[in-house]
Amino acid sequence: MSRTRLPVDLNRCTQLLGHGPVTLVTSAHGGKANVMAAAWSMPLDFVPPKVIVIIDARTLTRQLVDASGEFGLQIPTRAIAAQTLAAGSTSGLQHDKFAEFGIETFAAQEIAAPMVAGCAAWLECRVIPDASDRFDIIMGEVVAAYADATIYSENRWHFGPDPMDRTLHYVAGGQFFATGESFVLPTTR
Amino acid sequence: MSRTRLPVDLNRCTQLLGHGPVTLVTSAHGGKANVMAAAWSMPLDFVPPKVIVIIDARTLTRQLVDASGEFGLQIPTRAIAAQTLAAGSTSGLQHDKFAEFGIETFAAQEIAAPMVAGCAAWLECRVIPDASDRFDIIMGEVVAAYADATIYSENRWHFGPDPMDRTLHYVAGGQFFATGESFVLPTTR
Repeated sequence: MSRTRLPVDLNRCTQLLGHGPVTLVTSAHGGKANVMAAAWSMPLDFVPPKVIVIIDARTLTRQLVDASGEFGLQIPTRAIAAQTLAAGSTSGLQHDKFAEFGIETFAAQEIAAPMVAGCAAWLECRVIPDASDRFDIIMGEVVAAYADATIYSENRWHFGPDPMDRTLHYVAGGQFFATGESFVLPTTR
Repeated sequence: MSRTRLPVDLNRCTQLLGHGPVTLVTSAHGGKANVMAAAWSMPLDFVPPKVIVIIDARTLTRQLVDASGEFGLQIPTRAIAAQTLAAGSTSGLQHDKFAEFGIETFAAQEIAAPMVAGCAAWLECRVIPDASDRFDIIMGEVVAAYADATIYSENRWHFGPDPMDRTLHYVAGGQFFATGESFVLPTTR
């Protein structure tokens, strides 16, 4: 992991999730830590930056997020697609996914959850309390954001020729799409 | 529009949104209709199929969705990327977007909102009432689902060689990514 992580402007950071990439959710509390894959995550607001992640109430991640009020949200690249799939296919209630799948981590800046190395970008989040608890919707405010400078800088993705650097979009049954061709259309305003 | 729309199994239909494509939201009430682009939409549950879309409270779409309790959610392809961008860059309060941007529609099966022709897939949704109204989160249960048989069949995307058939992922400032290369990894369970 010799690549450089650079800060992302908090007021632009939810744009990192705008193209709908699959994410990894990390969590920690009381000596336990976990990582799960979440295809169902997206921005909720720009300023202050807020995100939504759907986290099933029966998961270890949900226990740890509810108890700690924090979670890490990160965008894996194709280089760690196999670990992402494994993290999404197994439960932290039965597995130490970090050890079993060789998922490397580093310490977060603002939260206790570990952050997954080798991702394209990282968002450290604090849970926004919500009275209605009906739908497994977890909301978080982003308190720190940074990205791999090779892939993202000046609030733009800069995917290069290495296909392993692309972010991912999950379908089902082990099928992913890599993020594809970029194109820019003239805006009308 | 000579292409065939085929039904999608309701219990599998939220998978259509799993890879995080940009969507178009259609709405109608009291003689008015509108279309907006929504990058912030995703599945909420499989069975019964539920979706979430973030719709700013100040928009005409929100007025029409709140009043009718229904909305159309559809996944545009690159063939209508310019119309998608235009629908996302202008307000229905000032513009008849269908007429101005040449956005063709057809009648929905279960809801009053028009559906946008030329998309990859369509979900007709009824709003799920929610007591907490703090975050512009609109939830819908899908009551009808169908897809362009050229692109999606048997619960799988089948993108062919035509780049205009790809679904889209929005970034900002008129920049999109097309849905890219598909790859399948062995599942661990």
